[in-house]
Amino acid sequence: MDFSLYNTKGKFYGISRQIPDSAEWNAADAKSGLGEIYIMGNVVIGQSGGPTAVINASLAGVVQAARIKGVEKIYGMHYGIQGFLKEDLIDLGNDYIRTREDIEFLKRTPSAFLGSCRYKLPPFEKDPEVYEKVFAIMEKYDISCFLYIGGNDSMDTVKMLSDYAALHKKPQRFIGIPKTIDNDLPVMDHTPGYGSASKYIATSVKEIIRDNECYDSPIPSVVIIEIMGRHAGWLTAAAALSRGDDCSGPDIICLPEVPFDMDAFYARIHELAKVKHSIVIAVSEGIRFADGTFVCEMEEENVKLDAFGHKMLSGCGELLANKLMQESNYKVRNIEFSTLQRSATHIASVIDIREAYDVGIYAVNKAYEGETGKVVTINVAERDPYQVYYGLHDVHSVANEEKMVPVAWITPDHMDVTEDYCRYAKPMIAGNYMPYYVDGIPHHMTLKKK
Amino acid sequence: MDFSLYNTKGKFYGISRQIPDSAEWNAADAKSGLGEIYIMGNVVIGQSGGPTAVINASLAGVVQAARIKGVEKIYGMHYGIQGFLKEDLIDLGNDYIRTREDIEFLKRTPSAFLGSCRYKLPPFEKDPEVYEKVFAIMEKYDISCFLYIGGNDSMDTVKMLSDYAALHKKPQRFIGIPKTIDNDLPVMDHTPGYGSASKYIATSVKEIIRDNECYDSPIPSVVIIEIMGRHAGWLTAAAALSRGDDCSGPDIICLPEVPFDMDAFYARIHELAKVKHSIVIAVSEGIRFADGTFVCEMEEENVKLDAFGHKMLSGCGELLANKLMQESNYKVRNIEFSTLQRSATHIASVIDIREAYDVGIYAVNKAYEGETGKVVTINVAERDPYQVYYGLHDVHSVANEEKMVPVAWITPDHMDVTEDYCRYAKPMIAGNYMPYYVDGIPHHMTLKKK
Repeated sequence: MDFSLYNTKGKFYGISRQIPDSAEWNAADAKSGLGEIYIMGNVVIGQSGGPTAVINASLAGVVQAARIKGVEKIYGMHYGIQGFLKEDLIDLGNDYIRTREDIEFLKRTPSAFLGSCRYKLPPFEKDPEVYEKVFAIMEKYDISCFLYIGGNDSMDTVKMLSDYAALHKKPQRFIGIPKTIDNDLPVMDHTPGYGSASKYIATSVKEIIRDNECYDSPIPSVVIIEIMGRHAGWLTAAAALSRGDDCSGPDIICLPEVPFDMDAFYARIHELAKVKHSIVIAVSEGIRFADGTFVCEMEEENVKLDAFGHKMLSGCGELLANKLMQESNYKVRNIEFSTLQRSATHIASVIDIREAYDVGIYAVNKAYEGETGKVVTINVAERDPYQVYYGLHDVHSVANEEKMVPVAWITPDHMDVTEDYCRYAKPMIAGNYMPYYVDGIPHHMTLKKK
Repeated sequence: MDFSLYNTKGKFYGISRQIPDSAEWNAADAKSGLGEIYIMGNVVIGQSGGPTAVINASLAGVVQAARIKGVEKIYGMHYGIQGFLKEDLIDLGNDYIRTREDIEFLKRTPSAFLGSCRYKLPPFEKDPEVYEKVFAIMEKYDISCFLYIGGNDSMDTVKMLSDYAALHKKPQRFIGIPKTIDNDLPVMDHTPGYGSASKYIATSVKEIIRDNECYDSPIPSVVIIEIMGRHAGWLTAAAALSRGDDCSGPDIICLPEVPFDMDAFYARIHELAKVKHSIVIAVSEGIRFADGTFVCEMEEENVKLDAFGHKMLSGCGELLANKLMQESNYKVRNIEFSTLQRSATHIASVIDIREAYDVGIYAVNKAYEGETGKVVTINVAERDPYQVYYGLHDVHSVANEEKMVPVAWITPDHMDVTEDYCRYAKPMIAGNYMPYYVDGIPHHMTLKKK
């Protein structure tokens, strides 16, 4: 493999097949010429947006790959780019991740180890100082690679900064590492975080079904489960993975990609109630009526906004449950998975952890090959047997776009998903990554001075 | 060990140190005399009340022990005593649990494999026919041992039937096998089901804390977690087990054993909000004001009843969250664990599974020694190292009574639990009993003809 090498002032030296030892790198100082001593800059890595069960596996991959490359300083942004702008940097390589055991421990820790943020850079025209500040800090700390782990909105940061660098001929490289439980990043097969969230959802839905079936009551018992998914129904679809020869799975699954028909929904429940005593339903928080209004906005005080200006959706499960209770004598329960579905690292999928880790490694490798303005992609060559390969995609076609569940994977009655979906998702939930237990509870790595 | 032996018509023969082979038992027919051939009756086992993550481990223990004893037919009640009264019996020994692998598979299955019921026998004076029916069915199927896995209300069934048997000089034996996530059965240290529910709660609370801490927002983020516990706060106390050197645990824990002071509660939140950006609170569904009214009854339409006449409590977490949202600018989220906390066998504790299994074995052994009108108890000789032994207690002092968290284990400000509680609970959550995974999801044993 050829490596493109720069010094910390951004001067390009050329290509080398060998990575010099760290010692050589430190001892040397700006000698030029091909094949002689070179200096390679530091890495800064940040986590942004909603946390997932595997976001730290990506962080671990970055640290591991950077260490192998002989990078001197591996910095972490404390609370994403907001912390970076305050120079709140964590010396990951020296203070936290020093051994292979640390790497393994980090991979088993939920939520964002470095902290996260929901902050979109303003357009350059509105606030050029922010951009100048970012680059001044990068130069101050000899940072040549800026890696950002995040979803849709976070890739926007990568795009803005790499555009600025291109425009102002800055040498620093910017790579996005994908992350989201929502699985809605385009140009890739699926995203890190989705497999583990799906495993959690399918396992929990199955346990809820088991629990709900246990009484033989003449009065039907209905459970409505509300699952995350603002516009894309990937997470809600995962409820279907509970289906097997030992479980019939949910009776109804409603995704936001298709209009929600309230009358048909309740008619189906009443039909089912004639023949079964246990009915379990999965709905996405983002289901909408044919006219586009969110079901959870049936009662207006439910509408709240998050920092990115997205409506914070929740409550449609409760509204649908309450309405059913008023209109029938059924026993009705509403369950909202809430943040449990994105933080359940105790039941993370091996495939998901591995892929999250790998995209971190891949990002470092590509950044040091000179790539910038790109996001790492996960691609599936074949699904059975499952074969994955990684790639890069221009961040301009990723940022601020959403990939939805194909309507062809939703049944014509809009109340289930097809086998096509299950074939797609099953490989991602395979294997369970065992936590490190202490006193009966999973143990986590936390930010503290060692 | 001496065994008391009866024939299926109830005639007592005497004591033997040996259990004859099944073949001898079947071949013989009512020969009397000590040391000669005896006939031992069949077992019927039922599950009752709310299911738990380990209720099937008790069932497995019963089947295993009965098989070893050479019992010919091991019947399961389909949906508890309600099914028994309809003669809806499952031939467990022949149709479902035939191998050691079946036993292991059953132990890893959540919720009541046989189905459950919430049905209390009416007093004899009100409905003598029900009692006559129970005994007629027992005689028809040559059942000499009636074992019932359940909690408080279920032990009532054991009491009523054993009292009737004593009064009418019936030979059948009745033993209760304890079960409840609530841990509120008196006369024993703890109950099967509690350890796994606690492991689930502590793990999930810890993941919620991790998730909630990830943003460095100037506006505090508050999560209120509502946990089951009608009158006893054992489950809610388990949130404290998330505390360790890697986690500060919940900031406030409110149990129903002490009056809930709304003003002090909100004052504490506001104090914490000045110094931390993440606040996580655990409240029991059964918290009450000083005057005895349930907090969830603040808005009257929340009050519903279950089949045993207990108020179905839920919603106090949501009410408290809504009030906080109205009175502050904090970001507030409400999470209710709902049935997840009692069906999460994927994170069952080894100790809990083992003890649930053991009390099933013990029940069979004692029934065949002639014991009746008793409930199996779990006793702790020493907590560190943890040593457990099993015993029997008169069912009259167990049925319809509740064991609460000692007030001495609740801090004086009523917002936390003490180290005494943690020392008590920690041993029960140790080890994790790995599910059998198929296609990435835990696999369950279900009722179907094999």
